[in-house]
Amino acid sequence: MNAPESNPAYVIAQKARFDAPIRLKGGAELPSFEIAYETYGELNAAKSNAVLVCHALNASHHVAGVYEDDKENVGWWDNLVGPGKPLDTRRFFVVGSNYLGSCFGSTGPASINPASGRPWGAEFPVVTVEDWVEAQARLADRLGIERFAAVIGGSLGAMQALQWALSYPERIRHSIVIAAAARLSPQNIAFNEVARQAIMTDPDFHGGHYYDKGVVPTRGLRIARMIGHITYLSGEAMAEKFGRLLRRGAPGFDFDIDFEIESYLRYQGDKFSTYFDANTYLRITKALDYFDPAADFGGDLTKALARARAAFLVVSFKSDWRFPPARSRELVRALLDNRRIVSYLELDAPGGHDAFLLEDERYHAALRAYLGNIEL
Amino acid sequence: MNAPESNPAYVIAQKARFDAPIRLKGGAELPSFEIAYETYGELNAAKSNAVLVCHALNASHHVAGVYEDDKENVGWWDNLVGPGKPLDTRRFFVVGSNYLGSCFGSTGPASINPASGRPWGAEFPVVTVEDWVEAQARLADRLGIERFAAVIGGSLGAMQALQWALSYPERIRHSIVIAAAARLSPQNIAFNEVARQAIMTDPDFHGGHYYDKGVVPTRGLRIARMIGHITYLSGEAMAEKFGRLLRRGAPGFDFDIDFEIESYLRYQGDKFSTYFDANTYLRITKALDYFDPAADFGGDLTKALARARAAFLVVSFKSDWRFPPARSRELVRALLDNRRIVSYLELDAPGGHDAFLLEDERYHAALRAYLGNIEL
Repeated sequence: MNAPESNPAYVIAQKARFDAPIRLKGGAELPSFEIAYETYGELNAAKSNAVLVCHALNASHHVAGVYEDDKENVGWWDNLVGPGKPLDTRRFFVVGSNYLGSCFGSTGPASINPASGRPWGAEFPVVTVEDWVEAQARLADRLGIERFAAVIGGSLGAMQALQWALSYPERIRHSIVIAAAARLSPQNIAFNEVARQAIMTDPDFHGGHYYDKGVVPTRGLRIARMIGHITYLSGEAMAEKFGRLLRRGAPGFDFDIDFEIESYLRYQGDKFSTYFDANTYLRITKALDYFDPAADFGGDLTKALARARAAFLVVSFKSDWRFPPARSRELVRALLDNRRIVSYLELDAPGGHDAFLLEDERYHAALRAYLGNIEL
Repeated sequence: MNAPESNPAYVIAQKARFDAPIRLKGGAELPSFEIAYETYGELNAAKSNAVLVCHALNASHHVAGVYEDDKENVGWWDNLVGPGKPLDTRRFFVVGSNYLGSCFGSTGPASINPASGRPWGAEFPVVTVEDWVEAQARLADRLGIERFAAVIGGSLGAMQALQWALSYPERIRHSIVIAAAARLSPQNIAFNEVARQAIMTDPDFHGGHYYDKGVVPTRGLRIARMIGHITYLSGEAMAEKFGRLLRRGAPGFDFDIDFEIESYLRYQGDKFSTYFDANTYLRITKALDYFDPAADFGGDLTKALARARAAFLVVSFKSDWRFPPARSRELVRALLDNRRIVSYLELDAPGGHDAFLLEDERYHAALRAYLGNIEL
């Protein structure tokens, strides 16, 4: 049993700086970069117990726990990651890594471009899931992790978990892919494109160079987030949670809030627009759109996955209409075609795409069992 | 057989002016109003062959045919309505009616407010499906139509067809409700709300008073239309039509158009923003949100429909995720509970919500058969 001092009550956000340039998939090169990260638990002597947690669009490296000076700010996957939790930090050394281009601490569009001495803004390159994995691999090197016991994520985080198995087949033993797809559908891309257009046509966007203008494209971010939220929740969950409840008891016959769902969306949009960076949003949605391991194999996902060596756990949720189970089954089939070891869990959970963040007993029990069976 | 002169080669847009005030559901009163309309075919001596066609969000009273001076401008339901077509204008006298608040000729937000001598703008009241039916009833009076053989529409038009059966049970023999729902789901409302917010937060909206500012909220309209289009097409149809085809052959790693679906959406948004009025868009989406015949009956649709006397044809399309078949079945069940005569057609057509506009052989055959069986 680990001593209490290996489970500190508070977590500390860290940054790793890399001075060797990184060449991105799109051709651009960053001369140097920083990656924000956090760790939980202890790397064992054999260095065999490291698990990388990859986050989705709106989250960060702050996966679990709270900071000593900000006890309200609970990590986004705190229900899953911690001592005694399904991803048990008494057993695993968990690394939460932010990605390149983020607005939460890693080098991104708001960072200073060393060539100009001003924020990158629109000049910050478009980054890809492959680039993120590349940066995370350097972080792993820095932390002395030769091989991850597992890489895990939901949604965009799951795409990173999948890409790890392709970029570094020998450096990952288990890939845990939750609520994801091997590539976006045109409808997925369509929603991203509307969000981007809302941001880019906001007069306060200034072509991406708004940092020194004293404004941010709040309106565009707000719309982008509202669109996002519609796709994160299932129609059924929305109906159950909000119904057709009228905020003022009766229709107002005006354009103030009538229905509860409008209130929810406006609130979510307003909140998001105060803290998220528009240039980051544009790049993350592009990374989502571009992600397509099969693209270099004529669209043949089976061929694309041939180089994977990891075992896989794939999880989907029936109410997820952003990445419905059919998209996960497509991935499972291609993995089985390659005789990979695959566990597949399809949960009848009501939470929509966001179900991967929620505390569902069967979901957590399955993750606990899977992770518990990983030999260290 | 009718003489050719009763099927003129060209149609003529008409306007009916009503000088008696109309009290709207929201409490406001319009002192007078105009309704734009078109007719096709001839009213028979018994005045028993009139069919009212109600249009959806983006269409107008121009249902069929072309104008002598604008032969490119084909009516939106021309594949259905005309001589020898399923809604056969050799047999029926078809009336296409625009609705109050429209930007296509009826009194709406861009019309002059007689009280101020300036465009209504934001002062134009929020109108409802019930108000539209009320105005259409006055148009029917004007045209000498005591009772419609049928009222037919798709989507928002279908809601009018349903409301006719409730507002004027004795004035409609058949209600033909296609691709609709008896009320919007919270998800439906959510999409409308995002579209409204995109328009209302556009700096060129000026609180609805943009007519005399020399600008229109083009950006907001564009986003609204893009969102709309995503909900009109099925994910499958989008996948089949656009796939992940890259416009430039390879990812551009920038924010120009990468995928064909982006090109399609931008084009649709651009086009729409040049001709549709933002204040109208806001009001139409509110009319959609508010439509809920069951609201006055504690949410009990069966009770709400008890006063209907018409026979019904309800049509839904499996690929329509905006108003999926389950929403139509809900309506059918409530009608059957009331021992109404109901025909229900659920078509496995790929067109999504827009399928009601498309020329599907089974769909058109069913409408032809149903309409052909209506006794005159």
